[in-house]
Amino acid sequence: MIIVLKPDATKEQIDHIVEKLKGFGLQIHMSKGEERTIIGVIGDERVLANQPLEVFPGVEKVMPILQPFKLVSREFKKENTVIEFDNGVKIGGKRIHVMAGPCAVEEKELLIQIAEDVKAAGATFIRGGAFKPRTSPYAFQGLGPEGLKFLSEAKKKTGLLVITEVMDPRDIELILQYTDIIQIGARNMQNFRLLTDVGGYEKPVLLKRGLSATIKELLMSAEYIMSKGNTKVMLCERGIRTFETYTRNTLDLSAVPVIKKLSHLPVIVDPSHGVGKWDLVAPMAKAAIAAGADGLIIEVHPNPEEAFSDGEQSLKPKVFKELMKELRLVAQAVGREL
Amino acid sequence: MIIVLKPDATKEQIDHIVEKLKGFGLQIHMSKGEERTIIGVIGDERVLANQPLEVFPGVEKVMPILQPFKLVSREFKKENTVIEFDNGVKIGGKRIHVMAGPCAVEEKELLIQIAEDVKAAGATFIRGGAFKPRTSPYAFQGLGPEGLKFLSEAKKKTGLLVITEVMDPRDIELILQYTDIIQIGARNMQNFRLLTDVGGYEKPVLLKRGLSATIKELLMSAEYIMSKGNTKVMLCERGIRTFETYTRNTLDLSAVPVIKKLSHLPVIVDPSHGVGKWDLVAPMAKAAIAAGADGLIIEVHPNPEEAFSDGEQSLKPKVFKELMKELRLVAQAVGREL
Amino acid sequence: MIIVLKPDATKEQIDHIVEKLKGFGLQIHMSKGEERTIIGVIGDERVLANQPLEVFPGVEKVMPILQPFKLVSREFKKENTVIEFDNGVKIGGKRIHVMAGPCAVEEKELLIQIAEDVKAAGATFIRGGAFKPRTSPYAFQGLGPEGLKFLSEAKKKTGLLVITEVMDPRDIELILQYTDIIQIGARNMQNFRLLTDVGGYEKPVLLKRGLSATIKELLMSAEYIMSKGNTKVMLCERGIRTFETYTRNTLDLSAVPVIKKLSHLPVIVDPSHGVGKWDLVAPMAKAAIAAGADGLIIEVHPNPEEAFSDGEQSLKPKVFKELMKELRLVAQAVGREL
Amino acid sequence: MIIVLKPDATKEQIDHIVEKLKGFGLQIHMSKGEERTIIGVIGDERVLANQPLEVFPGVEKVMPILQPFKLVSREFKKENTVIEFDNGVKIGGKRIHVMAGPCAVEEKELLIQIAEDVKAAGATFIRGGAFKPRTSPYAFQGLGPEGLKFLSEAKKKTGLLVITEVMDPRDIELILQYTDIIQIGARNMQNFRLLTDVGGYEKPVLLKRGLSATIKELLMSAEYIMSKGNTKVMLCERGIRTFETYTRNTLDLSAVPVIKKLSHLPVIVDPSHGVGKWDLVAPMAKAAIAAGADGLIIEVHPNPEEAFSDGEQSLKPKVFKELMKELRLVAQAVGREL
Repeated sequence: MIIVLKPDATKEQIDHIVEKLKGFGLQIHMSKGEERTIIGVIGDERVLANQPLEVFPGVEKVMPILQPFKLVSREFKKENTVIEFDNGVKIGGKRIHVMAGPCAVEEKELLIQIAEDVKAAGATFIRGGAFKPRTSPYAFQGLGPEGLKFLSEAKKKTGLLVITEVMDPRDIELILQYTDIIQIGARNMQNFRLLTDVGGYEKPVLLKRGLSATIKELLMSAEYIMSKGNTKVMLCERGIRTFETYTRNTLDLSAVPVIKKLSHLPVIVDPSHGVGKWDLVAPMAKAAIAAGADGLIIEVHPNPEEAFSDGEQSLKPKVFKELMKELRLVAQAVGREL
Repeated sequence: MIIVLKPDATKEQIDHIVEKLKGFGLQIHMSKGEERTIIGVIGDERVLANQPLEVFPGVEKVMPILQPFKLVSREFKKENTVIEFDNGVKIGGKRIHVMAGPCAVEEKELLIQIAEDVKAAGATFIRGGAFKPRTSPYAFQGLGPEGLKFLSEAKKKTGLLVITEVMDPRDIELILQYTDIIQIGARNMQNFRLLTDVGGYEKPVLLKRGLSATIKELLMSAEYIMSKGNTKVMLCERGIRTFETYTRNTLDLSAVPVIKKLSHLPVIVDPSHGVGKWDLVAPMAKAAIAAGADGLIIEVHPNPEEAFSDGEQSLKPKVFKELMKELRLVAQAVGREL
Repeated sequence: MIIVLKPDATKEQIDHIVEKLKGFGLQIHMSKGEERTIIGVIGDERVLANQPLEVFPGVEKVMPILQPFKLVSREFKKENTVIEFDNGVKIGGKRIHVMAGPCAVEEKELLIQIAEDVKAAGATFIRGGAFKPRTSPYAFQGLGPEGLKFLSEAKKKTGLLVITEVMDPRDIELILQYTDIIQIGARNMQNFRLLTDVGGYEKPVLLKRGLSATIKELLMSAEYIMSKGNTKVMLCERGIRTFETYTRNTLDLSAVPVIKKLSHLPVIVDPSHGVGKWDLVAPMAKAAIAAGADGLIIEVHPNPEEAFSDGEQSLKPKVFKELMKELRLVAQAVGREL
Repeated sequence: MIIVLKPDATKEQIDHIVEKLKGFGLQIHMSKGEERTIIGVIGDERVLANQPLEVFPGVEKVMPILQPFKLVSREFKKENTVIEFDNGVKIGGKRIHVMAGPCAVEEKELLIQIAEDVKAAGATFIRGGAFKPRTSPYAFQGLGPEGLKFLSEAKKKTGLLVITEVMDPRDIELILQYTDIIQIGARNMQNFRLLTDVGGYEKPVLLKRGLSATIKELLMSAEYIMSKGNTKVMLCERGIRTFETYTRNTLDLSAVPVIKKLSHLPVIVDPSHGVGKWDLVAPMAKAAIAAGADGLIIEVHPNPEEAFSDGEQSLKPKVFKELMKELRLVAQAVGREL
């Protein structure tokens, strides 16, 4: 950590800061420049997490040197994390995995039909929300426990693994019985209690980036989960909120190589929420793979007009099947498989 | 609702849409222009909350006419909502109220000292977090239940009302015993389960705007609470996330008159989180009152260097006292009291 | 255009609006709903460009139906625009073109060396700024006219076409003598005089998206150029400004398919400015092609440490050469050539 | 400047960087921490403006210590800059000045009428655009030279000073003859040629913040003007672009105290463009004064329905007059005059 002092900082002020830092077991290193004196803090600056330093008299600004996260960092673990599932599926390796299905679980037969369609096209996971976060209290909120059972049936029929969202810590135990990946949605990325609780299990987690979360904040939320013991975390770029309104969100594909650089965790991209219009999903899905994503999560519905949620951004199974073929070509072009 | 058709929409496509809308009991009104045909939908378009229309073949775009919220709207209730507390304090009337205290509750004696100081300066509420949402899992997370007891003691000593944050639906019952206002933080503005649960009580709620929430989304979250029966909702502008990094957030004071125009609910401004630097709090607090705020929530700590959280943005009691005097003058200048 | 009236709009107010609209030769179509009356305006609403309607008493909001641009729209011209150059190079067709070179033109020999390197790797244009927009008045501002001559020499030696930026209408005539494409930078996207002047020539133009410009505004700026007669316009996505600070900008690759949908003009992507860090350029360049870009513009410098501008985001020729090979594979995977 | 090295930086890499820095006449100060080695650069780091350092092998990141601007900084000049005009008006002192008038100059008689109205209400400047930057090429572009003459006549009749916008360096000489303040609009804040040229005169300049410009970038653009010799610069907050769409822009009032802290230059606020709706102008104008603004620029038009530009955000003279009375009270409450 570097502490930049004000031009008029007094000796008393400086001594006061130095004393404080030494109290934390840190070493200090003063450097007097022409216009500013700076204090270099040597040692693990994370011990200062609860210590406001900008507030000390004489301090102009405080600049951290180290990233605030540790367990998620590439520095802590050099090799890519690969998450393996019971059926041998591995996320984070050479093969790219596609998770597909409806936004919300609606009816059993419909879900099984979709599962069969996306499996035939090459998906390895069925997605679908039983508990749905909706902006309006008057919109469909999901089938709840019954939806989980339908997912489970779809798994039995097709062999697809299941991914579904948890919104409330009180639902975790129930959801764990039915899912292979627990999804934490964008709006809950900083629901710290939920992160903490999910961190207490061994079930793989897909953590979605919040609408206005920086990449570092996304990594800090992953750190929450990992710091409780659960190391099977995947990160998901699903679009951030910007001034552009033509698309539902702005899909920040540069997050893919950035996360790969800063962290060892797998990265999944959700082009459906990223753009919010079904006819833009295909180009962005291809771009995501070209940018280095380890997987995709895509909304598929045979009859988007009747979908209870997110119909605008759902692909019909036939379109999805075509897309999978195209994705396979892009994957090969960048040395991956799908 | 207006549905704009593509230039090449066929008769079959149009009939299909019209039939669908009629199935919802809506009337339709066609209008053929030179370049586009549009369908005007007559009736309460909120019945279409679960119906994706953009996905119908032949549709170019869908434009809602009505706001998606109802109970929170100025149209639904013309006069300002005034929330009254046991001790006669009323929020939303002529008098502006100031809620002040530390970011986090730390020690009992310290909290009582702060409560006495802010009361002497004219505050009517003591604020302080017992449960703290923190970006880092390694930072101080709050005292929990013990912190609530300290708040309660501070209330007993000073007569100040209490406001404190709930982060988890499982804590609501406990917190209700100690607080006069339940605060829902920015990161939980779209924690829909929490909103729903809080809506089941009669306790006043302060709902903070999310970092990237539009004003309409804030109102929709308030609608969640109100739709469950709790009508005592206050909205809080606390800064939004933009590209500007000098301030912690960008305090969007225009939200104050906008909310006043769209809704009947009281508006509180949090300049401390809005700017994140203590020396910018005073001008923004004054500006908030000039813009029409019904109250302020301000962080005060006698020793910001030792604060466990948000020390950079806390005012010392002496500075707070001076500010209160200045705020009183601005309040009078705009026809309010403080 | 749809005009939504306030619930309490009076007959006089409505008559006043209707009369106004009829004065513009427009037809109107009234529709009385349960909660709102709306006026549908039939005819080319672009005649209302100078007419504020939201200000009329009784008006709640005004919603345009048509896009404000015409010449640039896909509706106006169905087939893709292909821009052909003297040497047969065509932008906007099956083949993807790469424009490469230093951020700023520095020395003649160096520039020619770079030109030879990027040509050998497969680039068809040499890029380089003779006039440089720099945030600081103390930074290198470009070589000016001399830089243009160097570009011309590089063209003679290599046969590469030239693209360079114009910042000032007074420089257009000069720059036209040396360049094959006039580049208008992000900071000048709404320098309307410059757009107007450039529109008076036949020289192809690359118009970069402003840091906070919506896609529609980018298209409106292209409309400025086209409305003056110059139809050879290419649009360039180069990253927008968001809250994310890890990357220099946020490269909005969804702009590629969106522009392709709304417009017939070619789209070029600038991954170098989009991310601002050389090691993120390769994945984003691949992603741009996968998303459907017609070309790329990439910064290349043999000695980034000594570059006068943007060294951080420049690729060394050897890295560029490798990238070109990889891009070729991605181009093939999406049915293009490079 | 602080250079943070990668954990695996080699001795050769470090020596290479150190040598480079010494070549600039800078001293260096090495500090070896547990996880990182950092290099402190001592001396005026502004000499490194053209030197990319992040690109050196072994460098992880580069953190500047000093602000990149100098002449505009509070450090360079402690006391507030006060700009005095021929008629004794002073901007930047105790008295707050209001600039009012139509968005665009339309007709002579109308302009003179507005000038008389706003003068009677207490304004000291007449504003009005003769050259208008418009998003659409089909919208009214201003009267040009004739508009300047009308402004001049309005000045003669009323004694109000004139402020009008320059869009093109070729118009400066002409505009200088008619105006007392040259306005540089938001879209030209980084039109560096225009800044440079305007810097060559002694005429006061009002520099508006760009839609996506940080406060530091605004100050850098002011530095451009000042570095050419023109010290009479005023800065204008007029709203930034964010995700919020209810208001035209988000008026960032915290920019007022921030600029006051970082710089000695006067700050003007434009609430009309900041919110874009006339009924929100009054509360934001009051808030601007409470936040510490030295002046306001407000759009006034007697017949907004007929205004050629920005009618939605213009106040009628009667409303403006009322507002001026209210502003006077707020000014007094914060120790200013108006």
